[in-house]
Amino acid sequence: MFEKVALIGVGLIGSSLSHAMRRANLARTIAASARTEATRAAVRRLGLADEVYEHAADAVKGADLVILCTPVGTFDALAQEIAPHLKDGAILSDAGSVKQAVVDAVAPHLPPHVHFIPGHPIAGTEFSGPESGFAELFDGRWTILTPLPDADEAAVAKLKAFWEACGAHVEIMEPKHHDLVLAITSHLPHLIAYNIVGTVADLEEEKKSEVIKFSASGFRDFTRIAASDPTMWRDIFINNKEAVLEILGRFTEDLAAMQRHIRWGEGDKLFDKFTRTRAVRRSIIDAGQESPEPNFGRTPAPKKD
Amino acid sequence: MFEKVALIGVGLIGSSLSHAMRRANLARTIAASARTEATRAAVRRLGLADEVYEHAADAVKGADLVILCTPVGTFDALAQEIAPHLKDGAILSDAGSVKQAVVDAVAPHLPPHVHFIPGHPIAGTEFSGPESGFAELFDGRWTILTPLPDADEAAVAKLKAFWEACGAHVEIMEPKHHDLVLAITSHLPHLIAYNIVGTVADLEEEKKSEVIKFSASGFRDFTRIAASDPTMWRDIFINNKEAVLEILGRFTEDLAAMQRHIRWGEGDKLFDKFTRTRAVRRSIIDAGQESPEPNFGRTPAPKKD
Ligand SMILES: NC(=O)c1ccc[n+]([C@@H]2O[C@H](COP(=O)([O-])OP(=O)(O)OC[C@H]3O[C@@H](n4cnc5c(N)ncnc54)[C@H](OP(=O)(O)O)[C@@H]3O)[C@@H](O)[C@H]2O)c1
Ligand SMILES: NC(=O)c1ccc[n+]([C@@H]2O[C@H](COP(=O)([O-])OP(=O)(O)OC[C@H]3O[C@@H](n4cnc5c(N)ncnc54)[C@H](OP(=O)(O)O)[C@@H]3O)[C@@H](O)[C@H]2O)c1
Repeated sequence: MFEKVALIGVGLIGSSLSHAMRRANLARTIAASARTEATRAAVRRLGLADEVYEHAADAVKGADLVILCTPVGTFDALAQEIAPHLKDGAILSDAGSVKQAVVDAVAPHLPPHVHFIPGHPIAGTEFSGPESGFAELFDGRWTILTPLPDADEAAVAKLKAFWEACGAHVEIMEPKHHDLVLAITSHLPHLIAYNIVGTVADLEEEKKSEVIKFSASGFRDFTRIAASDPTMWRDIFINNKEAVLEILGRFTEDLAAMQRHIRWGEGDKLFDKFTRTRAVRRSIIDAGQESPEPNFGRTPAPKKD
Repeated sequence: MFEKVALIGVGLIGSSLSHAMRRANLARTIAASARTEATRAAVRRLGLADEVYEHAADAVKGADLVILCTPVGTFDALAQEIAPHLKDGAILSDAGSVKQAVVDAVAPHLPPHVHFIPGHPIAGTEFSGPESGFAELFDGRWTILTPLPDADEAAVAKLKAFWEACGAHVEIMEPKHHDLVLAITSHLPHLIAYNIVGTVADLEEEKKSEVIKFSASGFRDFTRIAASDPTMWRDIFINNKEAVLEILGRFTEDLAAMQRHIRWGEGDKLFDKFTRTRAVRRSIIDAGQESPEPNFGRTPAPKKD
């Protein structure tokens, strides 16, 4: 499908893309860059790329498709670094979990002969790094592409076909719209999990130890989410400020109302709210998005031998 | 272990207790009461009790151990109903998810010759009703007993042995302390799940349908929790008001701080918080409370044939 694909950053997403490309034979050559020697050594050992570089500028040379797979806070500097070295007609994409901020950070640095099409595979596990990837990560999950209004249709079609060949369903959206939907479905749930675990972390020692002892009654699952990579999530919240604050505002308003119902013993109102939320669940089952295992957006990583 | 045990209410907890008692041969006779004929018919069909009554007052006659297995909002009236019919020296317990309110509702109605020892098995599934129970529900999970200061030690020891024979680990606690620990580990997580799903339920139709489509990115798991039984949860929040409001206050303070960090782009502070929460996770793994499957306090129900 492509002569040469360059992966900038080889963590969970970069390494999974490599496995998925190998599985479906999507690139004659895979080039990769990683900042640490440890990661470059892992990439070589696992055969995740045919060419391994320290600098992104070297990896992108001659590539038809370049995908940024580092935290979104690095994209501005990376775009500046690679812009002069991108091939004529190359497609530049990314895997970043926010999209409008990525457009703002990357687009200004690019020459007109590059097709910039931001993307976001909605798939992950609780692990990170080059050893954590696997070919099936994107199978049956959504990848959202957020091309700019003047995007080249053929390039968008090609990138869409690429993700489909990696196993994903593809949806096209405006960047800001993506950010709002993900703020609700993913960023707010993660923020709340971080927050509730933070509240417990601040408890007096003996209370905390009891909470830990009885954590299996619900709290434990929040701690798994709140163990997600701090760099990635810091970058997500900083770069999706507007949408996160908007939905967080609604959430806290609703929580204040709930608090009042509890304080004033308004059982009927609580009962009504708790009944209404069941309808949302039913819609999710009808939409075929249900699965018996809770996963908070994560696919279980396959057992390695 | 007991000549006759009476179960008042036969839903998930009542029916699981019946299965667990049969498994370990803990009662010569099991009596049960249920308000609806449908439930009584199910109890007969499934052989969950040897004697089945409409009224609790009839079920408790001659019982050595009586366990209230209905929503906690019903306990006041039930205690009044059964008090005159309880056997001399009988142990009266319950499965309610809050404890101080249960003490307040039940204790005043009881004659001095009854041993009242409130209890709470921290175990559940997402299902309810008499068909949903199974013998293994309590295996390896905690049951908390909250005897009053003047409780009879032999009676407490006997109830402890009963729950252990049902497969549970038993911990003794003060009622108020139980309520605070559970407010943190279970009630607040459930309240937040109900709230976030409620926020989504109020969204404009097209936004909502997209949230449902992409719900697998994290939000979906909150909807499972927010599909829990509205009556049971209404009663929990109304009856654990103080502790829930206390921990909710801390949570919303912390959330306001988080909101500020996002608004002012304080990435370092977010990074610090997101790093600190990992320590709580590590403690849970060290405490042996970790399991790979998220479950929000629920045990997966076994497949029925
Ligand atoms: N994990 C998920 O659930 C998920 C899902 C969808 C999208 N995403 C997005 O995909 C991207 C990568 O996530 P991931 O899960 O693959 O992360 P990861 O496993 O932690 O890997 C991150 C990669 O970025 C590199 N990196 C980190 N900081 C860097 C910097 N300052 N300069 C240059 N390289 C840097 C790392 O290099 P070293 O190994 O050399 O340190 C590593 O190769 C992020 O933008 C994230 O938002 C993640
Ligand atoms: N489910 C859990 O996760 C869990 C965990 C620990 C403790 N608990 C506690 O255990 C108790 C029972 O929960 P469960 O999950 O077994 O509930 P469930 O499956 O919904 O069963 C509730 C039972 O209570 C009866 N009932 C409901 N309202 C009643 C009323 N107004 N008067 C008389 N009977 C009434 C029902 O009778 P009909 O069937 O005839 O309607 C049914 O037998 C609750 O106090 C709950 O807080 C639950």
